[in-house]
Amino acid sequence: MKVNPGDLILFCTEEGRTYLIEATAKKFQTHRDSFNLEELIGKPYGSTILGAKGTKAYALKPTVYDYLMKLKRVTQIIYPKDIGYILLRLDAGPGKTILECGTGSGSLLIAFAHAVGKDGRVISYEKEKRFQEVALENLTRFGLAERVIFKGEAQGSFDEKEEVDAVFLDLKTPWDLLKAAWQALKPGCPLGVLLPTANQVSETLKALEELPFVNTEVLEIMLRFYKTNPERLRPEDRMVAHTAYLLFSRKIKEA
Amino acid sequence: MKVNPGDLILFCTEEGRTYLIEATAKKFQTHRDSFNLEELIGKPYGSTILGAKGTKAYALKPTVYDYLMKLKRVTQIIYPKDIGYILLRLDAGPGKTILECGTGSGSLLIAFAHAVGKDGRVISYEKEKRFQEVALENLTRFGLAERVIFKGEAQGSFDEKEEVDAVFLDLKTPWDLLKAAWQALKPGCPLGVLLPTANQVSETLKALEELPFVNTEVLEIMLRFYKTNPERLRPEDRMVAHTAYLLFSRKIKEA
Amino acid sequence: MKVNPGDLILFCTEEGRTYLIEATAKKFQTHRDSFNLEELIGKPYGSTILGAKGTKAYALKPTVYDYLMKLKRVTQIIYPKDIGYILLRLDAGPGKTILECGTGSGSLLIAFAHAVGKDGRVISYEKEKRFQEVALENLTRFGLAERVIFKGEAQGSFDEKEEVDAVFLDLKTPWDLLKAAWQALKPGCPLGVLLPTANQVSETLKALEELPFVNTEVLEIMLRFYKTNPERLRPEDRMVAHTAYLLFSRKIKEA
Amino acid sequence: MKVNPGDLILFCTEEGRTYLIEATAKKFQTHRDSFNLEELIGKPYGSTILGAKGTKAYALKPTVYDYLMKLKRVTQIIYPKDIGYILLRLDAGPGKTILECGTGSGSLLIAFAHAVGKDGRVISYEKEKRFQEVALENLTRFGLAERVIFKGEAQGSFDEKEEVDAVFLDLKTPWDLLKAAWQALKPGCPLGVLLPTANQVSETLKALEELPFVNTEVLEIMLRFYKTNPERLRPEDRMVAHTAYLLFSRKIKEA
Repeated sequence: MKVNPGDLILFCTEEGRTYLIEATAKKFQTHRDSFNLEELIGKPYGSTILGAKGTKAYALKPTVYDYLMKLKRVTQIIYPKDIGYILLRLDAGPGKTILECGTGSGSLLIAFAHAVGKDGRVISYEKEKRFQEVALENLTRFGLAERVIFKGEAQGSFDEKEEVDAVFLDLKTPWDLLKAAWQALKPGCPLGVLLPTANQVSETLKALEELPFVNTEVLEIMLRFYKTNPERLRPEDRMVAHTAYLLFSRKIKEA
Repeated sequence: MKVNPGDLILFCTEEGRTYLIEATAKKFQTHRDSFNLEELIGKPYGSTILGAKGTKAYALKPTVYDYLMKLKRVTQIIYPKDIGYILLRLDAGPGKTILECGTGSGSLLIAFAHAVGKDGRVISYEKEKRFQEVALENLTRFGLAERVIFKGEAQGSFDEKEEVDAVFLDLKTPWDLLKAAWQALKPGCPLGVLLPTANQVSETLKALEELPFVNTEVLEIMLRFYKTNPERLRPEDRMVAHTAYLLFSRKIKEA
Repeated sequence: MKVNPGDLILFCTEEGRTYLIEATAKKFQTHRDSFNLEELIGKPYGSTILGAKGTKAYALKPTVYDYLMKLKRVTQIIYPKDIGYILLRLDAGPGKTILECGTGSGSLLIAFAHAVGKDGRVISYEKEKRFQEVALENLTRFGLAERVIFKGEAQGSFDEKEEVDAVFLDLKTPWDLLKAAWQALKPGCPLGVLLPTANQVSETLKALEELPFVNTEVLEIMLRFYKTNPERLRPEDRMVAHTAYLLFSRKIKEA
Repeated sequence: MKVNPGDLILFCTEEGRTYLIEATAKKFQTHRDSFNLEELIGKPYGSTILGAKGTKAYALKPTVYDYLMKLKRVTQIIYPKDIGYILLRLDAGPGKTILECGTGSGSLLIAFAHAVGKDGRVISYEKEKRFQEVALENLTRFGLAERVIFKGEAQGSFDEKEEVDAVFLDLKTPWDLLKAAWQALKPGCPLGVLLPTANQVSETLKALEELPFVNTEVLEIMLRFYKTNPERLRPEDRMVAHTAYLLFSRKIKEA
């Protein structure tokens, strides 16, 4: 596993800062040192590179987590703590077809596209064209664009009927598209919804009661990082307090 | 998508209790009613079945999350809140080769096997033979056994050398196998460790400092469910307070 | 500081179980042993007593925290994690006059009565007479009854006008009494509200916007216990996930 | 309750910023406006004052919580979420004698001094003289200095023997003073310890096992604020992730 020209690498400095960059014949400037990236090409991943000032850095193999943390953002993104859990609940795995609305900057989309593999498909609806342009840029950079079909605004319904394995809704008024989600889903399959506010959770729960969905659950996930000094183990001083509530449910044929 | 004889279905009662069972010509008895499962065969997923006492139940399509919640347990299992995040950090996706030690009841193993798809492989070490027997039973039930290679106790090293895309350690003294993990990993690739106690976190961090690993992070994930009454939205009264701390790091070629 | 006949003691067994009981000439039966309480009388607090089967127990000096944990309950109580913080926000200290509505089992009331001392007063409104009877019983047991004035249901207003240092509301529809709270409070002084559901928080915030209150804050407090094995330090497996949201605000003279 | 010259007031702007300042014949400049504080003198608390640019502000009655949030800091302070709970566990109420080591900036000391009232006493040990100077300044400003006795470094023991109602330790190596704490405490009475790191928790638990203490508990408290828009109720984006672990125990006469 050698670094090839044009490869995306996770460039990690000795202080632990990381950058997702291309391995090309360029200088790379961090806030502390300057690195000649050409030196990495042809070397194995995990190799050390020395900066002009003598500090070290490492060429790591980027993971889907790194893609999620380093993507270009034009909207609030969904965080890995939530994405990992969403993947399990929506059964996102090789070969699946998943529908999401909306695209945003494409963070969840990247994770879906990674999970469904070459034989899977992700259909992503979004009313803001410029968001999808950024999402496409992100997907292309990570080699995942071919697995995704972009569509524009969902006008109360989706094109898909009883044909997708999971639906995920991330928009301000998800209750407007619950019926559309129901129509798109294969029976017995899971729905997920991202809801930043408690009011949206209540509204969505109310709307769900009118539709043939069962097994509804609402939850939130908190992630706390720790300082890594083994002699002084303790959590970081500050953390993300909230991203969104998550709701999951299951389509049935009829109520 | 119809229910075939022998299919695993997620059987969900109208009160919301779920059971992962086979669709066969049997009666299925819940604490409240009795259902003739044969009625479901040939019907679409999502169909409703009536019990002898008139209560309803639904045949849902099981997800990997359901497999994780309903597997046969002989050890403490790893929870979905942690598993989803581990999948992202270890880049578990189609075609990957992942090494884990130990197997336990196979909860993380199921998620790995699901994520790597038909072209991927999971190598799972475990010293207790009876745990692997249960894990194999779980994997077989979910149709994932072919993707897994079981091995016995890791005696200070793994058979694999610079050939796996990720390593995950879940044993009492993971520091004993950090060097082995380093040897097994392709350079630049991720390591994950599950650590129930703070003392184990400190011990592992100390041992890691002696080895060519960078970008180490420690964290914990908390998940809180909410009651789903839209007029009285509030968290559940009780929750899981702790499962384990998670540690992630990356192999480099040399320090 | 010796144990006198009739003293309330915190009886703590060697396994760590605690009981708030009177020191009298009685046998005290735990699930494991039987103790002759008379032996404690005249001995200093902190003394050890041996049970009939040879297990040890200790006579500890009860604190207000012990009162809160061991009071007789007829309603959901407010927890110490919330009570300690409420005391600070409402400036509950020696000599203050505090109004609360409703009494419930008297848990917050006990803390208020303890904090305001002999020169302070707590006025407690409650529509359910039987709750106040239990609260009085609890207060009397802890020697705090003289500091409390009980009143019945607040019919849209309180008797007190611009004369109390703080108001705390713990009832289903606190928005009905916000104006009454405003009237009772000395200007510039704090209001606290306990709200189990998110819907109640929204409703109260809306109602507050119509009244001369400023500096409104909403929050929740989570408390996690740890297992106390120094070699295996880790949180308990389960915890209380939610008691209630807390809201604090301040009365001004006019909007 | 009128604002007198020299009174400490909590000055709250219409955007919700708060300042703890003296009511004197001065201009007070916020980042948005300028206020002539003299206008407030003689007016009731809760009165509104207009700035030169027409924005409003309010003179609120400061609470002990405001003192804690607005004190002069030279060290990491203890937070109200922890202080409120410590007060309950240590039974800090009118007339009590409490010993703490060390003083720091005096945040916990202010809360103790407030709680014990005029008839109580707080003895505060600290090796850094300059910290106590700041703490004294804070106490004097809040009118609480008379209730406090300052002492220098505790050289392995405290002057007090079986005479204090509670001890609180907040120093790097609390295990060095556990025996001293035991000697100072009245039997059966509570000890509290503040521990920023997990390693310190383990160390303290180990040391406690050698001494006549029982009923030991370790815990942490998390506080999450919410945004106060009733139509979009949700937690703040970020929060304090960790201040310290808290340990509580009880002295017995002998093991």
